Amino acid sequence: MERMERMDAGMPFLLQYEHVAWYDAGQVRILDRRVYPAQVRFVTCTDYREVVRAIADMVTQSAGPYTAVGMGMALAARQARGMGAAEQRAFLTRAAEELAHARPTTANRYGQITRRCAALALQALEAGEDPVEAVVRDTIASLNRRYRTMQRVGDALADLIPGGGAILTQCYGETVVGAVIRAARRQGKDFRVFCAETRPYLQGARLTASCFAQMGFDTTVITDGCAAFALEREGISLFTSAADTIARDGSVANKTGTLQLAILAKYFGVPYYVTGIPDRDKHSRADIVLETRDPEPVLRWGEGPSHTAPGVKGLYPAFDITPPHLISGVVTDRGVWVPYLLERYFDGGEAAFY
Amino acid sequence: MERMERMDAGMPFLLQYEHVAWYDAGQVRILDRRVYPAQVRFVTCTDYREVVRAIADMVTQSAGPYTAVGMGMALAARQARGMGAAEQRAFLTRAAEELAHARPTTANRYGQITRRCAALALQALEAGEDPVEAVVRDTIASLNRRYRTMQRVGDALADLIPGGGAILTQCYGETVVGAVIRAARRQGKDFRVFCAETRPYLQGARLTASCFAQMGFDTTVITDGCAAFALEREGISLFTSAADTIARDGSVANKTGTLQLAILAKYFGVPYYVTGIPDRDKHSRADIVLETRDPEPVLRWGEGPSHTAPGVKGLYPAFDITPPHLISGVVTDRGVWVPYLLERYFDGGEAAFY
Repeated sequence: MERMERMDAGMPFLLQYEHVAWYDAGQVRILDRRVYPAQVRFVTCTDYREVVRAIADMVTQSAGPYTAVGMGMALAARQARGMGAAEQRAFLTRAAEELAHARPTTANRYGQITRRCAALALQALEAGEDPVEAVVRDTIASLNRRYRTMQRVGDALADLIPGGGAILTQCYGETVVGAVIRAARRQGKDFRVFCAETRPYLQGARLTASCFAQMGFDTTVITDGCAAFALEREGISLFTSAADTIARDGSVANKTGTLQLAILAKYFGVPYYVTGIPDRDKHSRADIVLETRDPEPVLRWGEGPSHTAPGVKGLYPAFDITPPHLISGVVTDRGVWVPYLLERYFDGGEAAFY
Repeated sequence: MERMERMDAGMPFLLQYEHVAWYDAGQVRILDRRVYPAQVRFVTCTDYREVVRAIADMVTQSAGPYTAVGMGMALAARQARGMGAAEQRAFLTRAAEELAHARPTTANRYGQITRRCAALALQALEAGEDPVEAVVRDTIASLNRRYRTMQRVGDALADLIPGGGAILTQCYGETVVGAVIRAARRQGKDFRVFCAETRPYLQGARLTASCFAQMGFDTTVITDGCAAFALEREGISLFTSAADTIARDGSVANKTGTLQLAILAKYFGVPYYVTGIPDRDKHSRADIVLETRDPEPVLRWGEGPSHTAPGVKGLYPAFDITPPHLISGVVTDRGVWVPYLLERYFDGGEAAFY
């Protein structure tokens, strides 16, 4: 498997394939992004259901689950060895569905990977070949496809950033962070990066800021309440975010906080560019399923105890939806689209993303 | 001193005078609001300069310093005993200035208290009376005046909240929280409270939410990035905040994050009412001195280590300025004012606030 071409060369630590999620010898090892970089700790799974649990528990996030569900299917394929053919089919089909639905908002996306992996594993088993190797090879091939596609997105985004300017981001948009860093390097472009910390999990402070700083960018973390101040006074050229879902009507679901940053950017006359691949099966915001998570993390820090009085409740919607009128452009692998005209993107066919 | 009328009866724990800052037997004991309610811990000062440091270090905040600087002056008065008359004058004058400037944005406000305390202490020393008792009595009298004035503000704010409605707040507006709770009780009015947590010190989650929950209100903490979601979906009737400065042109300096909540409230058609007493000596936003604090707390949690990669910077402006066009009304002890017409407030003379 090591002979395969790998697109993660030169990427930050977080984007090295082995650090995202990796199958080896009956185990899937997933970098625990809830504690990185303060701790470099991996969660080890020996059953695909543990991979489902790890994704639901936010051990990995952003595009991490695309890799994790593939590697989870490799584990399921290994678990299926020794079963009868009918049992194998039932087991792998169930594994594909459970992994796909580890998080509801992106179930359509994960499912494209898991269902293909299930089919490949069954095909290999039928042919008397190693189903695990078939699934791992496919997962890496899928990763490479995604990196290639996202590199085009990163190139298009880097084009929009003025040299010497500054961008505002929040949360952690896995592939696009690496792609825009690579594109900026290639274009010889430098800019400052402001990262909203993105409570409660702090992906902005821990993941995005760490990647940019490690790659030599002037990087500043702000609290989520400081965005207006930064937009007013820090010369921000544009706000950009990834998207968990981009519906065909230009509505975008992304980490909670995106909506308000989009409103603030508009207020201050700063463009907002969302990056990613539109979802063919989501026609409008009505098709977006919003995940509401356990609110406990809002009332505490990491694994610590609650810092507020008993009886206080928390609210933690994982995502919010930004309407097209707040979006300046949708940056895709095929250029930058007016959000209201996103329907036309599909005239070009499917993106190589899964 | 215990014979004095006290306006803190029935107030939440945080507002009990002894818990804010208290002089007793050569010590000023200040509740450490940086860790409350997870820990109930007091910082004990035996020199007024330790009180200056405690205020600068955010041991107490909001209106807490008004009490702390008064009690700090009692300590200074005690330290001045045994000095010669000229030395006493110089010492108390310096103490008054140092305590006033513990935080730059509110130096004008603290100074009104500390200079009066210095004068009272010198007067008592000249008359052969106890300067400490004179200062403590004055500090408590000042607190009572402030509570009475702020109760009128709280009454006016409570009037604006529809019964069964919901308010959005951030940070911790000391006196107004108690006053609006008391007013709501008196008016037999119940409402839900959403508190933005207010990173990095979490005054919203730890202090405001704890007060409201302890007094029986349905209270929910949100991350600072979740305000747009809450305004869009939770039936918020109004956003309200205290103010560290209200300039005569209707510009308001308050905890960073206020500006963006005001923008978001306007976007969602939710009124924003700021509470407090206008500053006669601040004519416009140009007169507001913004304090920039050590950014380290943005990169960590409480006293913990940094959670991001080496080289990442932080930005922590303590305050931002909200312009009058984002403010629906300024709720004062003398009614609710159109922010553009705030100049007229001063026709009614000074408020009994210091």
